[in-house]
Order: sequence, then C-alpha cells, then structure tokens
Amino acid sequence: MSAQSPPAPTAAERARAHAMVDGDERRARIAWSRVLEPRRERPGLPLTRLEVALHEIGYTTAWHRLVDGDLPRAESARAHVPAVDVDAELSRVTRSRARVVVPGDADWPTALDHPLIRPHLIHVRGQGCLADLTQRAVAVVGSRAGTGYGEAVARELGSGIARSGWTVVSGAAFGIDAAAHQGGLVVDGPGVAVLPCGPDRTYPVSNQRLVDAVAESGAVVTELATGTVARRHRFLARNRLIAALSRCCIVVEAGLRSGSLNTAGWAEALHLPVGAVPGPVTQMSSAGCNEWIQKTRAGLVADTGDVLALAGSVGDAPDEVAELLGPARPLDALTAAQRGVHDLLSLRQESAVGDLATELVLPVEEVIAILSVLQIEGWVTQGESGGWLRTPAG
Amino acid sequence: MSAQSPPAPTAAERARAHAMVDGDERRARIAWSRVLEPRRERPGLPLTRLEVALHEIGYTTAWHRLVDGDLPRAESARAHVPAVDVDAELSRVTRSRARVVVPGDADWPTALDHPLIRPHLIHVRGQGCLADLTQRAVAVVGSRAGTGYGEAVARELGSGIARSGWTVVSGAAFGIDAAAHQGGLVVDGPGVAVLPCGPDRTYPVSNQRLVDAVAESGAVVTELATGTVARRHRFLARNRLIAALSRCCIVVEAGLRSGSLNTAGWAEALHLPVGAVPGPVTQMSSAGCNEWIQKTRAGLVADTGDVLALAGSVGDAPDEVAELLGPARPLDALTAAQRGVHDLLSLRQESAVGDLATELVLPVEEVIAILSVLQIEGWVTQGESGGWLRTPAG
Repeated sequence: MSAQSPPAPTAAERARAHAMVDGDERRARIAWSRVLEPRRERPGLPLTRLEVALHEIGYTTAWHRLVDGDLPRAESARAHVPAVDVDAELSRVTRSRARVVVPGDADWPTALDHPLIRPHLIHVRGQGCLADLTQRAVAVVGSRAGTGYGEAVARELGSGIARSGWTVVSGAAFGIDAAAHQGGLVVDGPGVAVLPCGPDRTYPVSNQRLVDAVAESGAVVTELATGTVARRHRFLARNRLIAALSRCCIVVEAGLRSGSLNTAGWAEALHLPVGAVPGPVTQMSSAGCNEWIQKTRAGLVADTGDVLALAGSVGDAPDEVAELLGPARPLDALTAAQRGVHDLLSLRQESAVGDLATELVLPVEEVIAILSVLQIEGWVTQGESGGWLRTPAG
Repeated sequence: MSAQSPPAPTAAERARAHAMVDGDERRARIAWSRVLEPRRERPGLPLTRLEVALHEIGYTTAWHRLVDGDLPRAESARAHVPAVDVDAELSRVTRSRARVVVPGDADWPTALDHPLIRPHLIHVRGQGCLADLTQRAVAVVGSRAGTGYGEAVARELGSGIARSGWTVVSGAAFGIDAAAHQGGLVVDGPGVAVLPCGPDRTYPVSNQRLVDAVAESGAVVTELATGTVARRHRFLARNRLIAALSRCCIVVEAGLRSGSLNTAGWAEALHLPVGAVPGPVTQMSSAGCNEWIQKTRAGLVADTGDVLALAGSVGDAPDEVAELLGPARPLDALTAAQRGVHDLLSLRQESAVGDLATELVLPVEEVIAILSVLQIEGWVTQGESGGWLRTPAG
C-alpha cells in the first residue's frame, strides 16, 4: 500500500458499518449515496467498474464487500465508510421535508432504472407522487441567461403544457428553467424541479420561493446526499434525471455552449424526442437551438401543439400511448370546451369535426385543437372513417 | 362560331404575320411573347395543350399554324395576331436597353430549358453574361414587409454570398429582396433581378435606382413583353425564373402566406435545395420560415456558410461540383487570406488544418471557413487522409 492510500476502516468501524445497513437495500443505498457520487456528466462516459458492480451484485452485498475491502477500485469510497451514518442522514433528509425514494417504492419512476440513469436513490420533496407526475411530463430547459424572448416563450410553453395536463420538468435555474416552472405554476399545473444539490439546500438560493412553490404543486427531486453543494459536474449529472423523468425535452433558448444542450444530449441518448425553439440567427442566445435544429437532431418547436406532438411521438402513435396510459386527468378537470366536445362523442358512432363545430358553435379549427389535446390525453380517438369517438376510458 | 369568338385575322393580316416571322425562330418567339403569356403560377399546374404543342412542333411552325387557324385551343392567342409587330417590339426592347435572349444564344442559361420553366424568351438588361452569372447563383427571397431583423440578415447574406464569388438572384421587391440585392452590391458583387413586368418598366417603381444598379453589376431579367404591368399571377410566374436561375433558394423572412414560399416551392419542384432563416416564434413575420424548417423541407440557414453548403450540395458533392465547373474566380480575385491559404497548399502532399493555422497565425476556425469557400469554388480539395490539397485548376 502506498503512503497516499486512505486508511482502511478499523475493525470496530467495519462492524458498525455492517450493522448500520444490516442487509436492508434502502439503507444500503443511503449509505452508498454518501460514499459514491454519480459522475455521469454526459451519456458517452463509460460506467466505472464500481458502478457496474453495484448493479450486478446489488447495493447490500456491495456495501458489505466495500466495508470488508473486497471490492476492487473502491479505495476512495471505502475511505468515507467510517463517516457514514444512515440514521443521521435519514434525519437530515426528513428535516429538509424530503423522503428517500428507491426502486420498488410506489413513487419511484421506472424510467430511472435505465442503465444510463440509475441514481442510488432520489430525495423527493412535495405532495405529488413522482411516478404519476412524470407519466406525462415534458422537460423544458434553456440558458440561465435567458433573454426576454426566451423567457416569454418558456413561460408560454410552461403554461400550455400544464394546461394540457402535462407536467413541466426543469432545473429551477435562473432564466429559462425558472420561466418554464413559473408558466406552469401560473395555471396551477404541477411541476417537477430537479436540483444539483442536496435536499437540504436550494440552488440558486434566490429561487427558494420558486422551488417551494414547485414542491407544493408537484415535487422537488435530487439524487445528492444532504449537504452537497451545487458544482459544475453535478449540474451535468442532474441533467440526466431531468431528461429521464420526461417524455421529451424542449430547449427553449440556448447558446452554443449552454448546459441545456447537455440535457438534450441525455434525452437523445434515451431515445426521447428533442425539440428546440428557433430564434434570430443574429442572437448568440439562440445559436445552440438553431444549430440543433439545423443538424436535424431536434424538431423545431413553435408552440405547445408542437411540444405535445413530440411528447406524443415517443415510441408509439399518440393514441396508442394514450390507450396505454389512460387519461391523464379526471374528467372533471377538463375545461368546459373540452368537456363539451367530449360529451358530444359516442363510443361507437363516429362524429365529424364539422358537425361538432356546428353543434358547439365553435370554429372548426378550435374543435380540431381541442380534439388533439383530448386525443393525446386519451379521452378521444379517431375511428376508421376519420370521425371521432370517445374512448372507453373516457 | 359563336358571337363571342374573337374575329379571325383577315387574309392580309395573315400574310403580314407570316412574313413578319419568316421562318426565324427568334422572331417567332418574340411574336409568341406578345400573344401568349406564361401562366405558370405554381409547379403543380399542368401545362396547357398549347404550351405542349409549342414545344413539340417548335415556335416557328406553331406561329404559322396559329396564324392559319390550324392550332387547337388557340383562339385567344390568334385574336392578338393582327396587333403583333416583331420589329416594333424589338425597337421597344432596345429602347429599354435590353436585349432578347433565346435558346441557343451564348447567354441563355440552360436551366431555363427545364419543362417546368421554358419561357418563350427572356429580356436581359445589363453587361453581364446571364449564363455565366447564374453558374454559381443563389436565390435570396422573402417578404416585402421585411422587419429590421430580416433585412439585416438578407443584407448580410447578400454580402457574404457575393464575397464568396456567387451571384445573388432576387426579385427587386421591397423588403427582403431589396436588402439581399443591396448586400451584394455593397461588396461589388454581381446581381440578377427578375422582374414581374416588361423590360421597359420597373416594379416597384421606387426601386428604379436599385434595379439600375443591379443591371450595371449583372443583369435584370424578364420574360414579359414590353408594356406588361406587374400583376399577382406575374409575380408567381416570375418566381419560377428566380428559382431556375439559382443553385439553391434561401427564404430569409416570410409569413405563412408570403409569396416567397412560392419561389421556394418552385425550387423544390426543380430539386434544388431550399434553406430558410429561422426567426422568433413570437413573430408572424418568421412563421413561414419556421414552418418550412419544421416540415424539414428546408435546411435551417444561419449564415453564409450554410448557404454555400446548400448551394454546393446540388446534385453532386461540393468538390465534384467544383471540379465540374472549375474555379469561379481568377486566382487574383481571391482575398489575401484565401490566397494565403491557397499558396501554402501542395498538389500532392496533404496539409493539416492545424499546420496551416500555425503557419498563417490564424484561428483554426477561420482557416476551416476559408478552406470551405475555396473548396466550393474549386481551388482546393480534401485528400484521402483528410488533409488539404490545391486542385490542378488552382
């Protein structure tokens, strides 16, 4: 052993560390969250042998092996073992009004099980069930240095997404993130904010009220242990959770080196659709978005309809997705106009758009727009002759 | 014959009309230009039987048959025969400082022979040879109601295109067209303006100075007979010539119903690349461009490099096109920086971009930009190992 190696835990420390976890997967994950920070800064980085081992042998076995020095390339993690106190960490999490959520819990979103994502655990603050909130969620991200244009569009999209019954997921940062969250909150839509710091902290600190409002409406999430402060590599690792918790990722405004393009990269790696809002070619603040659109890796997004079309295009056709998931909102959460259209439809006999418009005294375009939203949400479907039906779910 | 039918030419009128053309194809085309206006408003419109006949039997034979009443569905054209005076038309064209150009003339651009295009003839005013001017030409079009943003981008692209040795083709209209022309003129680049009126007129009248400047730098073109005034259907037919005279079509700024999208449609029908400049999604003035990009029918264009990449992508890879055409400018027309890069290259031994940058004390990005332009112009090419060579032509 070289002089630089950290001291191995003493026999007493090892005994305490074994007992502290005691074969409990949740406690093992909490212990690991304090000794091994996810360093997943971009999709292309290979997993370390340790990360692979954690998955292969499981957190509990891995913990006991770590404590005993039987895990290769784990010297740094092992050096932190003596300082770990699972009960103390649980107290700190509880004091920060968060809860620990691990695989198997009802509010664990299964999208987090993807090999590229796999946090040890997540801390969730808020009343919402994260698994439900992220069933129909869209990541809306962008530059911290958002312009008036970018922030206006982010707010507009945030409101539109929320109004359609989808959840806005973002990072609560200054600029575009905050504007997107605000847009959702303004129409009482639930939001999800993923933080680059421990659950007992807020970043940026001055967005504390916004983060609290998001927690109240939906959930504030972080995979980091208590006391962890925001750092560059943590923003990047956090971005993968934003992407994973969403059905598509929209970049509203981004310069060429904006961190939000990293989030888009994670979405791409997860085979989720990426959309970008174009901007003036004379503005560096939109150069990243324009470049992504140019390289055809991102669809051009001009309004909420474009976002929902992208979100609905994941994997299956929109109505298949809708059928799979069932309606996103209870019937009584529909707007009056949506309810009006829905109520006119039959389960078996198709209705023509023109007839619906006449009946409701609404412009045809508006009826089409309402039907699109209802279709994405699983309330209505198109019949073989092109007319509209309500779904059995509705 | 019904009472509504126009009177047939008298025997004397027929004799005069035959003699006036006298088997001369150029004179027959001039005669036809005064009796049959091209009604090609969009690519999808089928050719009339008369238009097909003109091509199949030739202008001279068709003229004599028209005069004799032997051409089906040509009553309207025949009614105009007595008023046609080829010599008088030639005088009027000459008085407007234009010349008649027909297939076979040295300055007839062969792109005009495309079945969708085929004007009877064109009137060309200006010192440039239109066939040469349009060997490397880009259509830059857009809304008449251009915003400050759109006009600034159009000017910038016009200058960049001209500086790279390419010709700006547009319609001399207010707004984007005028800005694109001006951008080219500012750097002494040759332009081509295609008008929606006869060669003895200018549209819009207040752009007279601009049109004169384009004529002096390059060429002003119209297929319409003298005295013809601008009308909606003539703008649309004119657009097909703008597209045909270019290697690609760039829409700088366009609302959803802008006529410039018609030009883009013609370019698409001719299998020419279409590019569009994105703009704020909050501005209706960019909605047409954004929509075209979204539907992936148009590449997103942010700068001159993007335009040249599109222009170079016609049919062949850029260096194949360059080989085909040879260098666009004489060596001494290169900028000092371009000349510097060119002079460093060998015919056989590849040079790396990094070495060129070091040698010239230029940023690598700038060297790459210069090489791209030189490549499109046929001066340099990339070797098998990815390094750069000068071409035998250079």
